[in-house]
Amino acid sequence: MSALSTRPDVVLLDVNETLSDTAPMARAFEDVGAPGSLAATWFAGVLRDGFARTAAGAAAPFADVAAGALRTVLEGVDGLGPALDDAVSQVMDAFTQLPAHPDVAPGLAALRASGLHVATLTNGATAVSDGLLRRAGARDSVDQLLSVQDAPGGAWKPAPAAYEHGLRATGSTADRAVLVAVHPWDVDGAARAGLRTAWLDRSGRTYPSHLTAPDVTAPSLTALAELLSR
Amino acid sequence: MSALSTRPDVVLLDVNETLSDTAPMARAFEDVGAPGSLAATWFAGVLRDGFARTAAGAAAPFADVAAGALRTVLEGVDGLGPALDDAVSQVMDAFTQLPAHPDVAPGLAALRASGLHVATLTNGATAVSDGLLRRAGARDSVDQLLSVQDAPGGAWKPAPAAYEHGLRATGSTADRAVLVAVHPWDVDGAARAGLRTAWLDRSGRTYPSHLTAPDVTAPSLTALAELLSR
Repeated sequence: MSALSTRPDVVLLDVNETLSDTAPMARAFEDVGAPGSLAATWFAGVLRDGFARTAAGAAAPFADVAAGALRTVLEGVDGLGPALDDAVSQVMDAFTQLPAHPDVAPGLAALRASGLHVATLTNGATAVSDGLLRRAGARDSVDQLLSVQDAPGGAWKPAPAAYEHGLRATGSTADRAVLVAVHPWDVDGAARAGLRTAWLDRSGRTYPSHLTAPDVTAPSLTALAELLSR
Repeated sequence: MSALSTRPDVVLLDVNETLSDTAPMARAFEDVGAPGSLAATWFAGVLRDGFARTAAGAAAPFADVAAGALRTVLEGVDGLGPALDDAVSQVMDAFTQLPAHPDVAPGLAALRASGLHVATLTNGATAVSDGLLRRAGARDSVDQLLSVQDAPGGAWKPAPAAYEHGLRATGSTADRAVLVAVHPWDVDGAARAGLRTAWLDRSGRTYPSHLTAPDVTAPSLTALAELLSR
């Protein structure tokens, strides 16, 4: 028996931070002469602005929001090494070259071996997901690479249209799909769209009280595969 | 002649950070044994989760999101002074007792003296706006205190419904109103809803390239009042 009341057919996996390890971004900021701690500030600003545009009914491509927010963050830095444009390019490049967490390749392989249809659903570009999975040797474990950029209006998760795109593209229905993410806002949005949800919590945090709780929680993708195949 | 092509009748002012000075929040975090830098991390998380809920079609009251995000942030702190619940209450209390920026009382008085209808439009509670303005001796300069909590679904700015609530409540139309905010995402959302926009930039930043530019920019509310009454 699965940890969920009925076994899902489709698993939709978030990509940024859920599959990719963003820890090296601190080093990428330091390499252009900025404090490493700005990496977290930057990424929070990307989500804030991306969600704002989605809420305003005018979603924008991830790369545009990310580069715009990066420029804003780096402009405030004294003693930047490269010129601003070059620093923005260099940090954005680093973002497309992140490694996967060590549990990703074996976890995806186990999910697929258990008979699930495995798809990624990112707010970013599928090319970035593709590169990440190839570098991890895990591309063959994923059946489909999906992006909200192909959803109506390009609405970012956690808008319902983003999850509906994931269901439509995989030929699934909400009750047969499980969304996997490290971000509580993604778990919350997927639950509101009717999907089952799995919260990946690699660092033993407490799930925030103001967002819909996940159906299952696992400390790694390998542990989650085990839970879902039970 | 106004700095805008036609003179507006109504000014809608954002409250958090636009009128209130949030700098003392760093001290409020330190008072419970947390790093002062967490204040900015916390507030970014409040916006991220509030916008996420709005994008998901399930907006939540500001105080709930703020307290939930605060608990998440403080839980990760080693050596918190008070118990977690008490620390959350203490920091939330500090948020309701922030001072106004020094330009707020004279700026609001000047806006009103120029014949504009002056209203606040906050993602938070009107009681917090009321307290802030009273402490600043500026309550009499504001005709109406509005909150998105009274918009359909409680949608936060920058959702169109939030600005439409502001227009409806002031009996205005988009072309006769100007939104004033320090946050580019608020300027962007208001512009998309058809309002004119003023960006208050007290620290000489560059407006982000990925969001709709404001119609006017001013370094203080007094300077803005001067610009709008020209």
